[in-house]
Amino acid sequence: MKKLPDKTVERLSQYRRTLLIALSNGKHHIFSHELAAMLHITSVQVRRDIMLIGYSGTLRQGYDVKELTDIIGKIIDSKDGQKVAVIGIGNLGRAIIGYFSGKRTKLSIVAGFDLNPDKIDRVYAGVWCYHFDRMADIIQKENISIAVITVPASEATAVADKLILAGIKGILNFTPRPLNVPSNVYLEEYDIITSLEKLAYFVKKV
Amino acid sequence: MKKLPDKTVERLSQYRRTLLIALSNGKHHIFSHELAAMLHITSVQVRRDIMLIGYSGTLRQGYDVKELTDIIGKIIDSKDGQKVAVIGIGNLGRAIIGYFSGKRTKLSIVAGFDLNPDKIDRVYAGVWCYHFDRMADIIQKENISIAVITVPASEATAVADKLILAGIKGILNFTPRPLNVPSNVYLEEYDIITSLEKLAYFVKKV
Repeated sequence: MKKLPDKTVERLSQYRRTLLIALSNGKHHIFSHELAAMLHITSVQVRRDIMLIGYSGTLRQGYDVKELTDIIGKIIDSKDGQKVAVIGIGNLGRAIIGYFSGKRTKLSIVAGFDLNPDKIDRVYAGVWCYHFDRMADIIQKENISIAVITVPASEATAVADKLILAGIKGILNFTPRPLNVPSNVYLEEYDIITSLEKLAYFVKKV
Repeated sequence: MKKLPDKTVERLSQYRRTLLIALSNGKHHIFSHELAAMLHITSVQVRRDIMLIGYSGTLRQGYDVKELTDIIGKIIDSKDGQKVAVIGIGNLGRAIIGYFSGKRTKLSIVAGFDLNPDKIDRVYAGVWCYHFDRMADIIQKENISIAVITVPASEATAVADKLILAGIKGILNFTPRPLNVPSNVYLEEYDIITSLEKLAYFVKKV
């Protein structure tokens, strides 16, 4: 199967999350317009995405929640799951580790890295924190493919270079410093200042 | 001036962030293709956005970094700034407060809220943490227009309702629970699981 567009994958992940909430509320069938309303998008968009992955519901009942969840899982998840490292064990790094702890997902955080001696060789919500010097070593030994960068902006570029050399294939950059990565590395960036500035702009009285 | 599209505002915020980095590196002029490369977008996109705000560079030197930064500021920022509250003073809430601390921005975090008695009436990086019960009171008294929600998913809906009743006009939701807000409230949502699932999908060996 050809790789799906970026935005479709993002929405599939959101559909699954929403379907799981529905399922836990005892809902077994759902219409495209219900999914759409919960995610603030159009039902045309929902139907288009779900057709794209070769699934369809029935006119009378809509989608089977369990079936659709499983199909999305088969597309998004790797069979054996994927391992994630968190670089920078400050408040944000710890929040991310804590957030994943105990969640049933195909993604597992298996290592943390920091430079602060007080943090190294300690365990955070079940995740061991190593010194930066062990990055390449642990990433290769543990077969880690994804890294989350939560270090100060000034260190972001050096950390990313180190990660790429160590064989990391996906980077989620939480620093405000835009990164450059080779074309075989997938990059996601999130900066809270941008989100808040957008809010501020739309909230602003004209 | 008519409100700009959502995505344009997002990019203007990113341009400004990138321009400020350039300026701090002693760069006084920048070409659209340089800005584009730093942000992994096309130079056509950059030129279109910047034309939209009524600015243009010169063929020989490109944009004046300082001028463009100021113009973006005039569009995005409110003259007197805007006040932000953080709801939920866990690791993520503290990371956000710490991140803003000392940053020169027109957005200032002026209050935190939590339910945990150990956190209430304490100061985090200069920000006072109040009990949830004081939310409406403080939001009105301090004229807070934007709230960041970092509570557990199960509390997200109740917290959002409380915030909207208190007069909050913009919400940044960091919980995985999608929210419903009235049309006069602006909502941004971010879920790290979706970002990581996207990475995992593209990193996955086919």
